[in-house]
Amino acid sequence: MIQLDDRVIEFSEYLADEARNVVLPHYRNQFIVEDKADSSPVTEVDKAVENVIRKLVENNYPEHGVIGEEYGPVRENAEYVWVVDPIDGTKSFITGRPLFGTLISLVYKGVPVLGLIDQPVLRERWLGANGVTKFNTHKVYTRNCPEIEKAYFATTSPFLFNYNDIPKIERVTKAVKTTTYGGDCYSYAQLAMGLIDVVIESGLKTYDFAALVPVIENAGGKITDWSGNPIDINSNGKILACGDPVLHAKLLDWLS
Amino acid sequence: MIQLDDRVIEFSEYLADEARNVVLPHYRNQFIVEDKADSSPVTEVDKAVENVIRKLVENNYPEHGVIGEEYGPVRENAEYVWVVDPIDGTKSFITGRPLFGTLISLVYKGVPVLGLIDQPVLRERWLGANGVTKFNTHKVYTRNCPEIEKAYFATTSPFLFNYNDIPKIERVTKAVKTTTYGGDCYSYAQLAMGLIDVVIESGLKTYDFAALVPVIENAGGKITDWSGNPIDINSNGKILACGDPVLHAKLLDWLS
Repeated sequence: MIQLDDRVIEFSEYLADEARNVVLPHYRNQFIVEDKADSSPVTEVDKAVENVIRKLVENNYPEHGVIGEEYGPVRENAEYVWVVDPIDGTKSFITGRPLFGTLISLVYKGVPVLGLIDQPVLRERWLGANGVTKFNTHKVYTRNCPEIEKAYFATTSPFLFNYNDIPKIERVTKAVKTTTYGGDCYSYAQLAMGLIDVVIESGLKTYDFAALVPVIENAGGKITDWSGNPIDINSNGKILACGDPVLHAKLLDWLS
Repeated sequence: MIQLDDRVIEFSEYLADEARNVVLPHYRNQFIVEDKADSSPVTEVDKAVENVIRKLVENNYPEHGVIGEEYGPVRENAEYVWVVDPIDGTKSFITGRPLFGTLISLVYKGVPVLGLIDQPVLRERWLGANGVTKFNTHKVYTRNCPEIEKAYFATTSPFLFNYNDIPKIERVTKAVKTTTYGGDCYSYAQLAMGLIDVVIESGLKTYDFAALVPVIENAGGKITDWSGNPIDINSNGKILACGDPVLHAKLLDWLS
C-alpha cells in the first residue's frame, strides 16, 4: 500500500473542514431540494459542498482528478483522483437526522488509499490512511466477532437490494444477533470503531464506497465486493464489510 | 386538556437530566447486554436509568404511579402515573448511534398530558405539555403537508408490522416522497419540529408511545391508533402520527 505524505492527509482534513462550514448553517434550515434522474433527492447544499471541494483540489493539486456525485468527472485518469460524495445520506440530511456524512477519498491508480467520513453535526471524523484509522484524534480498530449469530448487522434499507439478492439478505438478517437500518455511511464508521460487525449493501456508486475502503481496512476490517474482490473505483457497488476477516469469509460464502 | 403545574414540568426535566447523567458515561463503552423474553436486547444502562427515575418519583411524588419498560408497575391506578422508557432504541444505543432516547410521560387518568423525548448525546430534548412543545428552549411546530405524495415518512423497520398490515405499509411507502428507516423515538421528534410528515409504527408498548402523544399534539400534529382513536395507556400500539391533520385523515383511510 502506498505511503501518503502528511501534507495530502492534512489537505483531506481541510477539505472536510470546509465542507462542514458549508453544511452546518443549512442543517434543519430551508434549502432547495430537487429530484435527480434516478428520483433520489439532491439539495443545493450537496452541490455547494462539491463545488468547494473541487475548487480546493484545483487550486492545490491541479494535476489530480476529481470524481464527484453531483458533477462530471475531471481528469479521471490521473494518477491521483479525489472521489467525493458531498452528502452521503441525503435523506437523513433533508430530514434533520445527523447520520449523513461527507465522504472524501484519495484514489491512487484506481485504488482508494485515503478515506474520510465526516459527520458535521456531531463533529465526528473517521480518517483511514497509511495503516491507521483515526476517530477524530485517536486510533480505532474493528472488533473480533467470528460468529455470524453474534454479529451486529447494519444496512441502509432492505429495499436497496436486487430481487435475486433478497433471499441472501434475509438469510443474514435471520442469522445475526441484531439488524439496524438507516445508517448510510455512518454504519461503516460504527464498524471501523468496533461498535458493529458487518455492513452489507448493494447499488453503491464509486463516490459512495471509495472512502469506506481505507477507513475499514486500516482499522483491521475486511471490505470486498460480494465475490471477494478488492474494491477499486470500478467495483460493482455490492459491498461486504466486516470487522473480523473470519466473519467476512463466512458471509462471503453466503453472498457469492 | 389538564393544565400542569410548572413544578411537575420542571421535575420531568430533572428526571431527564438525571437519566442523561447515567447514560452518557456508558455511550460507546462496555456494558452488559442481555436478551429479554421477547429476544429484544436490554442493557444494565436501561435498568440503571429506570431505577434512578423510579427513586426520584418515589421521593418527590410518592402518590404517583410508575410504569416502566424494565420493572413491574407501581400504583398503576393512581390519578397520575409516570410512564418511562429508559432507553428507546436500545439497538441504536448498543451500536453507538445517537438516535436513541429516554422517554418520560406523565399520564393523568390514563391520558398522557406531558411527554418528553431526550437524546443525551446530542443534548436534544423535546417536551410537550400545556399546549406547547419545546425543542430545548424554543417552541416547535409540525409543518403543513396535506398531500401524501409530498410527505416524508419514517418508520423504524419494515419488519415490525404484522403480516396482514404489510400491504398497507407498502402502499404508503410507494406513495410518499421519501421513506427513512431506523429512527425509533427520534422520528417523532423530527415530526414535532416539522422535519418530516408522518410516522407509522406497530407493536409499540405503553412506555414506547405515551411520551410521544403530548410531544406531537402540542406541536400541532395528530396522533392516533390506526382506527383513529386517541392514544391512552391502553392503546393497541399501532400508531399513526402526522404533522398535518389533513394528511392524518387521508392516511387513516388507508390504514383502518
